[in-house]
Amino acid sequence: MTQLYSSVKPTPMLKDELDIVIPTIRNLDFLEMWRPFFEQYHLIIVQDGDPSKAIKIPEGFDYELYNRDDINRILGPKASCISFKDSACRCFGYMVSKKKYIYTIDDDCFVAKDPSGKDINALEQHIKNLLSPSTPHFFNTLYDPYRDGADFVRGYPFSMREGAITAVSHGLWLNIPDYDAPTQLVKPLERNSRKFDLSLRQPILYVDAVMTIPKGTLFPMCGMNLAFDRELIGPAMYFGLMGDGQPIGRYDDMWAGWCVKVICDHMGWGVKTGLPYIWHSKASNPFVNLKKEYNGIFWQEEAIPFFQSVTLPEECTSVQQCYLELAKLVKEKLGKVDPYFNKLATGMVTWIEAWEELNSAEGTEAKAPNGKSE
Amino acid sequence: MTQLYSSVKPTPMLKDELDIVIPTIRNLDFLEMWRPFFEQYHLIIVQDGDPSKAIKIPEGFDYELYNRDDINRILGPKASCISFKDSACRCFGYMVSKKKYIYTIDDDCFVAKDPSGKDINALEQHIKNLLSPSTPHFFNTLYDPYRDGADFVRGYPFSMREGAITAVSHGLWLNIPDYDAPTQLVKPLERNSRKFDLSLRQPILYVDAVMTIPKGTLFPMCGMNLAFDRELIGPAMYFGLMGDGQPIGRYDDMWAGWCVKVICDHMGWGVKTGLPYIWHSKASNPFVNLKKEYNGIFWQEEAIPFFQSVTLPEECTSVQQCYLELAKLVKEKLGKVDPYFNKLATGMVTWIEAWEELNSAEGTEAKAPNGKSE
Repeated sequence: MTQLYSSVKPTPMLKDELDIVIPTIRNLDFLEMWRPFFEQYHLIIVQDGDPSKAIKIPEGFDYELYNRDDINRILGPKASCISFKDSACRCFGYMVSKKKYIYTIDDDCFVAKDPSGKDINALEQHIKNLLSPSTPHFFNTLYDPYRDGADFVRGYPFSMREGAITAVSHGLWLNIPDYDAPTQLVKPLERNSRKFDLSLRQPILYVDAVMTIPKGTLFPMCGMNLAFDRELIGPAMYFGLMGDGQPIGRYDDMWAGWCVKVICDHMGWGVKTGLPYIWHSKASNPFVNLKKEYNGIFWQEEAIPFFQSVTLPEECTSVQQCYLELAKLVKEKLGKVDPYFNKLATGMVTWIEAWEELNSAEGTEAKAPNGKSE
Repeated sequence: MTQLYSSVKPTPMLKDELDIVIPTIRNLDFLEMWRPFFEQYHLIIVQDGDPSKAIKIPEGFDYELYNRDDINRILGPKASCISFKDSACRCFGYMVSKKKYIYTIDDDCFVAKDPSGKDINALEQHIKNLLSPSTPHFFNTLYDPYRDGADFVRGYPFSMREGAITAVSHGLWLNIPDYDAPTQLVKPLERNSRKFDLSLRQPILYVDAVMTIPKGTLFPMCGMNLAFDRELIGPAMYFGLMGDGQPIGRYDDMWAGWCVKVICDHMGWGVKTGLPYIWHSKASNPFVNLKKEYNGIFWQEEAIPFFQSVTLPEECTSVQQCYLELAKLVKEKLGKVDPYFNKLATGMVTWIEAWEELNSAEGTEAKAPNGKSE
């Protein structure tokens, strides 16, 4: 068999170059289910709620665990930029990681199966996506041209076939789709299933493709199943101010997605979406979600046109510069929509300051008191 | 069973509103294979070569057939805008059709099977694509939100969920992919197969999705398996000057695609790609293709940046106006790349004049001498 598949290159698994960031682990089955795929990686767990509650991590995992007390201790007053009692706190993990790549996943996401019934190694597909180029400047109708058995179609300019560096790999979800509260309320039974489910009257929705999101196009980035090149785009992966004390929730990943996409477009980097799927096990409560979302649903009608029309000045040649410029524009243009955006813009600046502090030569001493590292 | 699928609306098959345009029919099996799907439609066949050679159409089809003599007779001196000895002549069929929709297909494209082994009714899927809206202004990560069982994901602005009118449905191909000559030469065995073919070492490449190509993004439009709303975008579906007496071939559909996409973006209409697949039976000769393509491969490096940067003035409110403006800009900007583009720009103007003539109240008398109409 090996011989037959010899044209398919094995994926380097980047054991020493990738951290897995998990906002919190409430579900004990979660890590057990992922053990064959995650055990060789270092985990960074950022506890989103009460720091006095202990999180139990099964034996055999290499991890560090941060709670609110740790975040306050490490960042001092700059801890104000990290959300509390909201999974948005996960971005603290991106900041303290020392690795090139990050994979972040929610604890209600399980291993999905492909149409042949085989367990999907989500991490392997994300790594494939990140290590192969993107095609943001021209659309390839046969999807990812770098995939085995695919290529660029007739009419694809040869000068563009080297593609762009990939900064983000956005994975999808089978079973419970990532819907907003109003859609959840209207379609309580909808599932993104891999077979036609007669009882639910729904077709197969496993789409076997990875796409580059074209330059100039925004997308709703979901943080459930997301990988990125931290060295490239990490400073823009800020999940904003959500949850406790804030007028909004469930827009942490959306906010990051808009900022990241605008900056990737400016820098000439690619963002991919599609494979891998995970199995999203549990729909969150639509009534609770509606309470978190209603401001976001309203504000996005202003925020999205803002991000669609934003252009970053040529002088911005680093992600940090781009992000600070974006913070300035957010204050200027969205501050009038709601004072929340002024607070968020300040959070964006603090985030960059904290990032710089922790990621400078002197700032590498952050230690996890509850973790264990090999 | 009917009851179970009751949520899935039946597709109106538009028997009286759609013409099928075929550039020529060399393969006698072609129409027999499509009989169950095409027999209820009116066919317009545009013979690309020697008018003295008769094309045999099997019994039971309702068709009109045009050869070069007919084109010359109907268009007079304006026939100069229609290519000779090249399948680009098919666009004459778009011009003489009186229907709202066009489906065009090559005679080496057969009925494909979906992964469950069922024959794909390509026309039905194209109609679905054309009758449901597009989403060119924001990317939906679960692909077509109007598909049964799918929807807009969290973070998709509610004000954009009505989508845009769909003008074009671009279908794909299983088996022989639509590669240019250099890629054909380098990968003579590559197939877009629906199963992992052990002998060819290739994975499944049936992608079960329909995508909107975002506003501002160009794509390589292939004319093999293409449907469009003729009343909306017909005047921009000009397949250029190719083949006999021209320095280029195999760029007819590409040219149309660049023009159509720029105009759809300007008008706010959507272009979809993806399903349906047809079975592309035969790879054309890569050496012959290289001879046809080499100028195009070179020129597209200038033409694509031109189309990427073009903006049409607000005063252009009809497709005809947009197209004439585009012709002017082609002459201005691409004329210096090669004198061919001056000739092509003239062809574009003549095409619009001929379109107007045939599609005005007085111009509806074009008759097919070799056809039979019910």
